[in-house]
Amino acid sequence: MALIVQKFGGSSVADAEKIRRCAQRAYDARRSGNDVVVVVSAMGRTTDRLIELAQDIAPNPPKREMDQLLATGEQVTIALTAMALHALGQESVSLTGAQCGFRTDGTHTRARIVAVEEDRIRRHLRAGRVVVVAGFQGVAEDGSTTTLGRGGSDTTAVALAAALKADACEIFTDVDGVYTADPRVVPDARKLPRISHEEMLELASLGAKVMASRSILLGMKHQVPIHVRHSLLPDAGTMIVQETPDMEQDLVTGVALKPSLGRVTLTDLPNAAGIQARIFDAIAAANVLVDDIIQTQVGPERLDISFTVDHAELGDVKPVADRIVAELGRGSVKVDVGLCKVSAVGVGMRSHSGIASTMFHALASAEDGPIRIENITTSEIRISCIIPKEDGERALRAVHAAFGLGERPHAGSEAVGEVKRAGTPAAT
Amino acid sequence: MALIVQKFGGSSVADAEKIRRCAQRAYDARRSGNDVVVVVSAMGRTTDRLIELAQDIAPNPPKREMDQLLATGEQVTIALTAMALHALGQESVSLTGAQCGFRTDGTHTRARIVAVEEDRIRRHLRAGRVVVVAGFQGVAEDGSTTTLGRGGSDTTAVALAAALKADACEIFTDVDGVYTADPRVVPDARKLPRISHEEMLELASLGAKVMASRSILLGMKHQVPIHVRHSLLPDAGTMIVQETPDMEQDLVTGVALKPSLGRVTLTDLPNAAGIQARIFDAIAAANVLVDDIIQTQVGPERLDISFTVDHAELGDVKPVADRIVAELGRGSVKVDVGLCKVSAVGVGMRSHSGIASTMFHALASAEDGPIRIENITTSEIRISCIIPKEDGERALRAVHAAFGLGERPHAGSEAVGEVKRAGTPAAT
Repeated sequence: MALIVQKFGGSSVADAEKIRRCAQRAYDARRSGNDVVVVVSAMGRTTDRLIELAQDIAPNPPKREMDQLLATGEQVTIALTAMALHALGQESVSLTGAQCGFRTDGTHTRARIVAVEEDRIRRHLRAGRVVVVAGFQGVAEDGSTTTLGRGGSDTTAVALAAALKADACEIFTDVDGVYTADPRVVPDARKLPRISHEEMLELASLGAKVMASRSILLGMKHQVPIHVRHSLLPDAGTMIVQETPDMEQDLVTGVALKPSLGRVTLTDLPNAAGIQARIFDAIAAANVLVDDIIQTQVGPERLDISFTVDHAELGDVKPVADRIVAELGRGSVKVDVGLCKVSAVGVGMRSHSGIASTMFHALASAEDGPIRIENITTSEIRISCIIPKEDGERALRAVHAAFGLGERPHAGSEAVGEVKRAGTPAAT
Repeated sequence: MALIVQKFGGSSVADAEKIRRCAQRAYDARRSGNDVVVVVSAMGRTTDRLIELAQDIAPNPPKREMDQLLATGEQVTIALTAMALHALGQESVSLTGAQCGFRTDGTHTRARIVAVEEDRIRRHLRAGRVVVVAGFQGVAEDGSTTTLGRGGSDTTAVALAAALKADACEIFTDVDGVYTADPRVVPDARKLPRISHEEMLELASLGAKVMASRSILLGMKHQVPIHVRHSLLPDAGTMIVQETPDMEQDLVTGVALKPSLGRVTLTDLPNAAGIQARIFDAIAAANVLVDDIIQTQVGPERLDISFTVDHAELGDVKPVADRIVAELGRGSVKVDVGLCKVSAVGVGMRSHSGIASTMFHALASAEDGPIRIENITTSEIRISCIIPKEDGERALRAVHAAFGLGERPHAGSEAVGEVKRAGTPAAT
């Protein structure tokens, strides 16, 4: 008998009919002889509606009370889901974050998990019940309700799976798995039967919206296998698993595009110790999320530093940059718009050379003309190029093709356990 | 410094604007130097909407999950109310039933209070905060959310006032106090500045909708003065207080009308021991609420028994009555429709005679002709007559006038502390 955590997101529980379907999935898993813990989000747009309600009351409400308010969204869904299971003849019990002992620190609206008192859930499982847990929420030491921030229900599911040492953590969502690239942009993108936590983490931070980075990181830390599946389709989806040596046979697992970036460049800054900290402290204080940072040391006394941000953040970041330069008493600010970032990700990069070169060649020889590379950034398992925004989608297709990631004829299904990955012998 | 519990019902917190007004009232009380605990209901029709949502999922949901679901309504309101207080510059904290230690038994949907851990609330009060508590809900020993049933927020307020030994429990509602009769029927009905718990209890069970019986009973038991006030008007309202000897100077405090009753009569039953229990067990099992029971013993071997029910319940009760008679093998069932009940209530009845007679005279000499009395029932402080439905409103006016309850010129205000009550010397 296995223990399975199943998580259903907001769009999967948006109405009574959809909740009944999720309950059916949990019921089927239980009837197959598994212990089942279900984690649910708030229904559809509930969280947004509650935020609007709070805005009607006060422009800047206390975060503790925001958490008290928002936690009701998931509490509604757990009760309804438990009712739907009961209607199927399956004994079930709903638990809020506090009731299941999901303990966090007191950082309201983005609390960190301290401990999960998993014995409370185990007691119900032993009694044969399906346990339905409210995602996104926990309880602080003083008994206050906390929330984990956006994407928090994924985090709840992975944390519970880790605490319960679950055999699988299934994330049911409105996509059917993780692809080698966004299928809307790259028509021959292929669904990956398997991907490592680390690769998934890079893809998530590059704009793949399947799961939030934080929950993947938690899964990586606690070695929780995460199974991304479509909530309405029977497909096997994608397993996010611990890296295994055979994964390195593939150079690149997937490619991703961040479609709309701007770049801020501070030039001719004094090259003093601590200057970077000073700059990015000011930017963080303005709540701007920086994408990549690129520093070029021009001379012993002079420094240029660039960073990219989402296009939408440019308006906020420009005045901050201007103020920094004014305070330093030297330098100037330049803003470039109309950029994007194409990236290739794969644990195979650790052990293979020539990948960067394959990527640059792909961009240089793209259909309809060469693509200009403005900046290059890399991590151990990722290589990214900043390029003109208008070239983004054809760059993605070119890189996807260059690493041989496209759909190919292959024997058998892509069921997990009989994994086939995209080897790229042509690029080695 | 006094400690005040203020309760705002669903219509008083129906939208953001109204919540801000309630917060303002609590803020004013706090600024006047009082410790303030606020109890709120779910916003407007929220509870009904949640019940509909549950019905969409399952026709007969488990009661534990109904409680988990319904409790979210009050949780939304406490968070918003605390936000509104915060926006006024008043430190405030919202607490669910579980968070404030409102412990109940495990009887879901109509839980009974076991204890209130009032030290949790006191700690926040000492820190200068207004404490906003979710009405209607508690927590069972196993940590499950419970609810107290309809009217539960009043019960929460009175129970907290009792536990905290509050100086006052203010019930803010959409009426401005308790009247000698329903002002829509009796134009010269007078607002009572003061009424005893026991009188209020009788009036509540006679159809006065100001407060639920259960909360008044709790106030009586713990000697909590309850102050019924309009949530939007500054009026003093009505104080529901412990009975004092001077209250007995008045014969009758108020009159009430139950407008639409039916009567079921079982005649010629065998006069056996336990027959009444057998009849009313069967009726209770059919979830029919019986109003009054009238038994006439006809002969040593033969029994007639009548009871009144709300007109709406007649359809449910008739088949039950038929089945009882069939099972007893003797007797017949007669149903009368088109009845109503007019009642007079007052603690003065304990020590004064002649009140029944005044009432019968009033009905016999009513304007537009005498009113036929079908049945009479009494309690220690109440006398009720079952009469034809079409005579109900003029009977109410006649009895109200006979006991001299109408609005009269009087010196000074009706402010609490300077109480004037309706003496009826003419009727003694």
